[in-house]
Order: sequence, then C-alpha cells, then structure tokens
Amino acid sequence: MVLRLSQLFLRTLREDPVDAEVASHRLLVRAGYIRRAAPGIYTWLPLGLSVLRKVEAVIREEMAAIGAQEVHFPALLPREPYEVTNRWTEYGEGLFRLQDRKGADYLLAPTHEEMFTLLVKDLYSSYKDLPLSLYQIQNKYRDEARPRAGLLRGREFIMKDSYSFDVDDAGLDASYAAHRGAYLRIFERLGLEVIPVAATAGAMGGSKSEEFLHPTEVGEDTFVRSAGGYAANVEAVTTVVPADINFTAAPPAEVLDTPNTPTIDTLVAASNELAPRSEADGGAWTAADTLKNVVLAVTLPTGERQLVVIGLPGDRGVDLKRVEANIGSFLPIAGEIGLEAANDDDLKKQPLIVKGYLGPGLALDEPLLGAESTTGLLYLVDPRVVSGTAWITGANEAGKHVYGLVAGRDFSWDGVIECTDVREGDPAPDGSGPLALARGIEMGHIFQLGRKYAEALELKVLDQNGKQVVVTMGSYGVGVTRAVAALAESNHDEKGLVWPRAVAPADVHVVAVGRGEEIFATAEQLALDLEAAGLDVIYDDRPKVSPGVKFGDAELVGVPTILAVGRGLVDGVVEIKDRRTGDAENVAVDKAVDYVVNAVRAS
Amino acid sequence: MVLRLSQLFLRTLREDPVDAEVASHRLLVRAGYIRRAAPGIYTWLPLGLSVLRKVEAVIREEMAAIGAQEVHFPALLPREPYEVTNRWTEYGEGLFRLQDRKGADYLLAPTHEEMFTLLVKDLYSSYKDLPLSLYQIQNKYRDEARPRAGLLRGREFIMKDSYSFDVDDAGLDASYAAHRGAYLRIFERLGLEVIPVAATAGAMGGSKSEEFLHPTEVGEDTFVRSAGGYAANVEAVTTVVPADINFTAAPPAEVLDTPNTPTIDTLVAASNELAPRSEADGGAWTAADTLKNVVLAVTLPTGERQLVVIGLPGDRGVDLKRVEANIGSFLPIAGEIGLEAANDDDLKKQPLIVKGYLGPGLALDEPLLGAESTTGLLYLVDPRVVSGTAWITGANEAGKHVYGLVAGRDFSWDGVIECTDVREGDPAPDGSGPLALARGIEMGHIFQLGRKYAEALELKVLDQNGKQVVVTMGSYGVGVTRAVAALAESNHDEKGLVWPRAVAPADVHVVAVGRGEEIFATAEQLALDLEAAGLDVIYDDRPKVSPGVKFGDAELVGVPTILAVGRGLVDGVVEIKDRRTGDAENVAVDKAVDYVVNAVRAS
Repeated sequence: MVLRLSQLFLRTLREDPVDAEVASHRLLVRAGYIRRAAPGIYTWLPLGLSVLRKVEAVIREEMAAIGAQEVHFPALLPREPYEVTNRWTEYGEGLFRLQDRKGADYLLAPTHEEMFTLLVKDLYSSYKDLPLSLYQIQNKYRDEARPRAGLLRGREFIMKDSYSFDVDDAGLDASYAAHRGAYLRIFERLGLEVIPVAATAGAMGGSKSEEFLHPTEVGEDTFVRSAGGYAANVEAVTTVVPADINFTAAPPAEVLDTPNTPTIDTLVAASNELAPRSEADGGAWTAADTLKNVVLAVTLPTGERQLVVIGLPGDRGVDLKRVEANIGSFLPIAGEIGLEAANDDDLKKQPLIVKGYLGPGLALDEPLLGAESTTGLLYLVDPRVVSGTAWITGANEAGKHVYGLVAGRDFSWDGVIECTDVREGDPAPDGSGPLALARGIEMGHIFQLGRKYAEALELKVLDQNGKQVVVTMGSYGVGVTRAVAALAESNHDEKGLVWPRAVAPADVHVVAVGRGEEIFATAEQLALDLEAAGLDVIYDDRPKVSPGVKFGDAELVGVPTILAVGRGLVDGVVEIKDRRTGDAENVAVDKAVDYVVNAVRAS
Repeated sequence: MVLRLSQLFLRTLREDPVDAEVASHRLLVRAGYIRRAAPGIYTWLPLGLSVLRKVEAVIREEMAAIGAQEVHFPALLPREPYEVTNRWTEYGEGLFRLQDRKGADYLLAPTHEEMFTLLVKDLYSSYKDLPLSLYQIQNKYRDEARPRAGLLRGREFIMKDSYSFDVDDAGLDASYAAHRGAYLRIFERLGLEVIPVAATAGAMGGSKSEEFLHPTEVGEDTFVRSAGGYAANVEAVTTVVPADINFTAAPPAEVLDTPNTPTIDTLVAASNELAPRSEADGGAWTAADTLKNVVLAVTLPTGERQLVVIGLPGDRGVDLKRVEANIGSFLPIAGEIGLEAANDDDLKKQPLIVKGYLGPGLALDEPLLGAESTTGLLYLVDPRVVSGTAWITGANEAGKHVYGLVAGRDFSWDGVIECTDVREGDPAPDGSGPLALARGIEMGHIFQLGRKYAEALELKVLDQNGKQVVVTMGSYGVGVTRAVAALAESNHDEKGLVWPRAVAPADVHVVAVGRGEEIFATAEQLALDLEAAGLDVIYDDRPKVSPGVKFGDAELVGVPTILAVGRGLVDGVVEIKDRRTGDAENVAVDKAVDYVVNAVRAS
C-alpha cells in the first residue's frame, strides 16, 4: 500500500526533544518513528513499527536457518522459578515486581532462562530430543536506574532471546557456534557493524560469553582490541601477570616519616626527596612503585553495606565497572550489587583506617587488611601484585609510609581481582600487541550457561545408556529495539536519518513538488507504478505544503531513494536522488520506475 | 519450510490437563499449541504461534482496508493518564499495579484509551487531520478474579484495539460503522460465527456499544435474540414498560395479618386464603401481584460497602449481572463494584428492616425505603413498577403485609433499574417478537466513546471556523488470543482439533505410515513438492512411531488435509483425507500434489 503523507499518522518536528542526548533518539522522535510514553518506555508510530518489523524479519530468517524454533512466553511471570535460581533476589532493584489480587508475587521478565528450562523439562525427556534451540521475540522489562538515550537503554524493550539445549559440552559448543554465526549474519544483513568481544557472564552465570558490540562514541560499553585480533569488553580484559620474584634477598621493610603525603603524587615527591632510589635499583620512585589501597563500599542484593579494600599500583585507577564484574565470587551472596567509594560514615566505623596512609600492615602475622585481620576487611589486589614485588605503602599512621614491603613475605590478600583501568597501549593478554580502546553498544550477547539453570530446575534427560543426565544450555540475546536505535545512530547526517535498504520504512519516497494538477497526477501514477513493481512507497501528496518542507521531511525520514516530480516535468523528467550520497539525476518519466527498481535491486 | 515432527518442538499429550474445563483449553494443551505458565497466563508453542499469527494477519488486512494505521504502545504505563480519567481507581482490583525503583506508580494496561488520546493530542491539531483510526495488536493485562477456560479468560492476553478520532458525531458514526463492517469481515474470514448484540458500555463509558458474541454453550455471556432480528447482551436488554395506570379510583391500601409468610410462595398461598381476589378483579393472586424487596450490598471501588434495596415483581428473580451493569449512575462513584445479597451483619445495622416483611412503607409521606426515607437506603425498582400499579408487599412488621399499595400514590422510589432475570419468551423491546436466550463468548466489542476521554485529557482540534472543539472518539477491541480459543471451541471433534483453513498451522499433514525406505522417500518428496507448490506442510517423519500414534497425532493436531503414504504405495496410491468430513480417497502418487493444492484452493 502506498503510504500517503496526507493520511499517514506522522508529524515531523522541527525541534529536538528536550531529553534527547543522542542522535538516534533525537531523530527517531523528530522524524515521527517513536514517542516517549514514560522514562525509558516508548510508543512505536507507523514508520517506526515498519522498521522494527523489518529488523524482526531478518532475525526470524536467520534463526530459522539454524533450526531454532519460535515460541512466545508471557512477560508477566510467577516468582517461583526465579526464586529457585535465586534471580528473584539477585536482580535487585532492576526487576519490576508486583503482586496479583491474591497477593501472589509476579515479575515482568528481564530474560526467560527459567521458563525455557521448565518448558523443555515439561515436554522432553530423552537425548534423542536434543539438540534443541528455541527462541522468541518478545517484550522485556528492566527497571534501569538511569534509562537513557531513547531506545538505547529502555525499561520496556524488545529482545530476541534464544536458548539451546544439549546433552553434552560438544553439543553446547556447536549450538553456541551456530548462534554466533547467525548473529554475525543478522548484523551483516542489517548493515550494522559489530565486533564480537570476550565478555563476563555477570548475573547470567555460566562459562564462556561474548558480546556483539557496535562501535560508536555514544556506546556505554568500553572495549579493547589489538591489531592481532584480540577483542574484549573492558570488564573481561585480563591483565598480563608478571612472574613471581624471589624475595629471599630482599631487604627488610622500613617505616619512614613522610609528613603530609596523603596522595600518591605527594608520596612520590616526598619519597624521591627523603629516600631516593639509586639508578641501579631502578632510579627515581614513580607512582608504579606505590601500593594504593582503596576502600570501596559494596551494597549487597540484600541491601546490606559491606566495605572492601582494593590494593593496586599507584599509577593505576580503580575501574568500578571492572570491580563490579569480577567481585561476585568474593561476596557472600550473588546478584546485582551497588559499588562506590566508601564515604566518611563508612570510614568512621573503621578507626584503624588512617585516611591517606592505609596499608595491609607491616608484617604477615600482624595484618591490618584481609578477612582474617584486625579489621576483618576483605582485601583484594590487582594481578600485578605478585609474590616478591616490593612496595611503598601506608604504615597505618598519619604521616608514615612503609618502604620495601614485600608481597607474600610481609603481607597477603584474600584474592586477586581485575580492578584497574585498562589503558590504551596496555598489552593484550594473548600477546597479540598493544590494546586500543573504543566505545560500543551491546547489540547481542551469547552465553554458554552450562548446567546452572538445568541443575537448579532439574532439567534432565536419559542419555544413550539410559542414565539421567543434566542438560547443558546456552542463552543468546539480540536487542531488537536497540538495533533500530543503533541503525539510526550509525546512519544519519545533519539533515536526518539515512536508512540502509534492508530496514528502511519504504524503498522510495515520492514527492510532488510545487503546484499543478499534472505534477500531482504524475507523482500519483509513479507511486502506484512503483508499488505495482513490488516496492514499498511513501508518497508526499500533501497539496499545500512548500517544496522546502517536503524535501526537509523526506531527508529527515530517510528513505534511501527520493523521487521528486516538479518543474522538470515540462521537460519530461523527474529527479531521483540517493539519500545517502546526495547524488541526484534527472530521469525521463517513463524510465523512472525501472531506474528506482534497479537502484533497489542493486543494493 | 516443512515442519518435520522429528524436529518440531511438539509433544502431544494423551491426558487432559487437570485444570481444563472446556474443549479448547483441553485440546490446545493436548495438541501442543499452548502451555500454562501461571493462572490465566499461557506460553505459545510453535503450532499455536502459527495459528495466532494467521489470526493476526487477517485482522491486520481488514484494519488496513478501512484505513486504520498500526502503532504499538507499551504495556507498562504510568499512572497519571489513568488518574485523570479516574480509571486508575475505577478498575479496582482488576488492574495490575506496580511501582518502579523510584516509587512511581505504574500499571499493566488493560486497554489504552488514555494513551491513544494523548498521542493524537500530541501530534494533531486540526479538523483537517481527522478522521483518524489507529490500532495496535498488543499484550493486555487484567487481574481477573477467576481466570478460567484457558485462553477464553486470561490475565495476559492479546487484543487488537483500535481508536477512532472524529470532529463530529456524524464522523464517529461513520468510523463506528467502518469498524463494525471490518469486524464482521474478520470473523467471517476466520470462520467464526458472531452475532452483534446491543451492549452496555460499562467502565468504558460512552453511548452506543455492541458486542460480537460467538454463540457457544461454554460462553460466559448470556444474550437474547428475537426472530425479528433484535439481539442484545442480557445486561443491555430493556424491559417492555407497561403504561401508567390511573389510580384515582383505587381502593386504599390495607394491612393484613399474614403470619408465617416470609417468602413469596407462602405469601401467595396465604393471600389466596385470607384475602381471595374475585375473578372480576383478576382472579387468584399470583407471585406477579407481589412486590419483592431485595437488599443488596454494593462494594464501591473505594472499598466502602453500601446497601441498596431493589423492588421487583415477586415472580421475577434479581439478575446481579444486570444490576451491576445498570446501577452505576445511582452510585456516588464510578468504577468496578462488587455486588451480592446483603448478609446478616449488613441487616443488623438496619433495625427497621424486618426480614421477609420488607416494604417501601405504608404512605408516601412515611417512606421506609429511599434516599430521603427513615432508613436512607437507596430504593430502585424494576421498570414494571409504574405509577398506578397496586401491590401486595411487606408492611415492615413480622407477619404483616400491606394489600393494594399503589405505586406513585402510596410509595415512591429513587430510580428505575433493569434488574430482573430475562426469560425465554419475554417480549423483545422493539416489538420484534419473543426472546430466545443463548450463551456466547465476547469476541469483539465496539464503543462510541464520545467525548469522555477527549474531554478529560483535553484533546481538541481547530474546526473549520478556527474554533477549538473537543474530538469525539470510538474504541474497538477484538480478543486475538480468545479468537484462537473460540475457533478451537467451535472446530473440534472427539479426536481433536479441526482447524478452518484460514488459520490452520499448516495446509497439509503428510504422514509416513509403516516401514520401508520407499515409504519415507516418497513421503519426503511429496512434502517437499507440496511446500514448493506454496503450501505449509507438516511432515511426520518419525521413524519408529506406530501408525496408530501418527494418525492419532494428525487428528489431534487438526490440519485440514491429511496425506498418508503407506501400504497403498505398492499400488502407486496415497490416501488423502479431509480432517473435517473424514472422507478419504486413494490418489495416484503423481496426482497427489495437485489434488491437495486444489483442495486448499477450493476452500
């Protein structure tokens, strides 16, 4: 059907919406694709819905191509299955919870691992039924603390989520590989550049996990890549760990007066003055010689607040997102946590901590930090703090530091954690060269869940020997509404949207420019002929709208080909313009349909 | 794509689910179309999703044909718009409510009048923009007190809801008529018999309203129809009102001792003994001569409990659903109410009420019932209680009744209400003959909302004279998931489902029966050829499943044509069976594809 702008429910806006920070949000609202209904919650208008459906169709085709079967789960789900896997609690405030009229607990599902596991348990019982991949394209809900950037981080959004079920690890590897391939094809067909990067599993659990990041300045995720092909989400990058150092010959540690040195900078300056190091021993002290001990406050999923101390080289900063992604295994309870620097109230409760002069203690048998120490505070260190390394660090008295405190000899720790900022030029862990930093949007995420959910919910099948075995699972997500936003983000210019053909709301935007019955009659006929040729057509048939407004709207809306019927008609030509390149050509009226059809086919 | 049963995520069940009361629920679960996730909340399996998508496609086409444009609203919505129209409160316990992490109130939308109104207000401002019809196919939520009958009354379900926007009443009439026509076409194409019946507007508000009922014994709605073409939901039927009677010559009322007559039956018997009526005056007393006064307890949307007295002829019963549908305008607050007979605790608070002997009082200036009376109880009467009618009714003393109490002379009332049971044979209000009663499922409901929502949310446009006018609206719903259930309800036999072609999950179900490579090779080739001919094909390629199980599954699943490749193959024939009629025919293998294609085309 020809979409006539005289009828289409569309109003383009001249002004940017006040809350729009990013181009996709600004342009999708201004061009009449979406409207905000509540923070992070959007309504889809006809043009937006059309793009969304095209994205969904590409995903469905590629899912079918790997044999995944579509089902559809409710969004409103009972608490019980999520209680069994502990995610009812682990999701913390990110979960929308509610009660029905009888007081039973429900949630709006953020993801459906539990339900898929139970469904397969319900229907299948033998290894012969596997492998199986199921998926849905469905509304998801997450109560984001800061919904932002329009569709990029919403609270109600559409995801394609798949789940694979296999009887053994080799099967899971194959299902995972099939999904990985399908994802690369989906994004390629959508015209959306993505980079698969190693990722942490987070609340989802499981072993291997990769994200598909679309590189863009407005992305919330930071990732690294090396020229040699390493790529990882910054949370998942691992530090190159130096070898242990034999400390048998190391001199004993020594406490020195270092008045007014509460910061690394002041400490380094004072050290080079008070206790200069010889060139032979390494030359002037630098921040890398100091061990900085940072007190963090963790808010557990239960709401309880717990202090943790992180020890790291003084030339590095703490990256809270990396700490958050990796601290889980050290905490008493799994789930979504809050993380921030400890505040004065927190520190008051720890009188032994002297601000600016905190250290792990002066001797192995008199620790100040660590679960078994006087303070009882969990003490985690950066992987660079290996046994035998010697440090300048706080002596736990104002104005005093200890020099040559040797890791493993004079102090110990509860665990090693990836916690420091990753820097441009840091070495890739696989030796493939220095890392470059970039920002991206997470477009997809694939997980080898393993047996976590199947174990918890008792999904077992009989194997070839008639023995009950726990099924191994994968889970695979694509942000569908987010893909629309990412496409808009990477396909626009100062005039508006510039859709790739695969997802454009129409193939061609016919504009009747100026007045005169013949212009409108010709434009109308071309629109109908283009439609008859199998194209999706927008036709701007508005009678009293100026050429400037019509062209402006066409460029804002962003259909790939713009066909203008106007003054050239007296010479028998219409203008056909490529929205992306801006190239325009005058084409004879009777050649126009073929010209456009060829343009559509060529791309 | 050929759906192979060796791969398809499907397990048919031999046993009925324990909670299934109706055939559609039983069969859709047993045949692997849906699974229960929670009370009134279902998961769609591949075959169910396929039927659902086909129903949706028919609806989309007919909506497009009347120029309605598709949009998509969130299900999770903020409280504010629903607060403005008071529906946040009016919906009572039927609304799923929740709070986000900041404590802001949200709801899961049961219907979207407010949001559509605000969207149009947001984008449109002139009469030139109208008429406009928008629709969506979307998840809806209602916290039903008694979710039942599988998909027939769910708590999460899919609706197609449309909204029309017009500048004047004539426009609304036209939009309403267009939707009415589209609905009739939708149900006809789906093969689902519906009867449009007059309905009450209920919580939706507005003036004219019709329901599309699918007649079936398992329906929750009772409706009436006359041979002359009248049809109405039982809540909306109006009583034929007798003319007023001149009471100037009527004898005065008289109180008589009628010991032990607390029921209508005992009262009639006693009256015919104590105060027999002459043949000239109408003969023996019947229950129709008595005025029964029934005390009901209304629970208001605020939770407050209020007593109401209903006066009606003693030969009729009170129909609580009819009272509920019609009492709204007499209550202090609009919205969903609870309604039941008053209990002993309620009556104890009204010492003037003598159980079994309640009446409106003995004289107009000494009323016992009515807002202005001693009790202050709201008093509503059946439309048959017209001025001048004389009644036997309670005298408000145990063992006493009053005879010849004349309506309008001796007692009055606060209002007239449709409240009695409607009976087979009652006259149609339009004189079109006696009414027959039937049961049905509400498949669609269309409303002329008028200006209620536009007024509340200030949706105005400039009219031709440049004056602001309030827009007039219609709202139109089709139960999409319910349609799947109704189709199953009216298309099944003892063996299973019998889908109409328009919505069947496949056109043909190919079964390889028995053993032997040739059977499977031929069946496979036929399945591929049928698919190549443009048909949707299910192929039962399971190698070690008995013919009985395969045929049983084919009949349970209910695809219209079953093609069996088996023993006949040695004679070069396959069996093609019509699932609905059971007619089977042997067809030469090389004619089988054409035969099936013709069967599909013919229907």
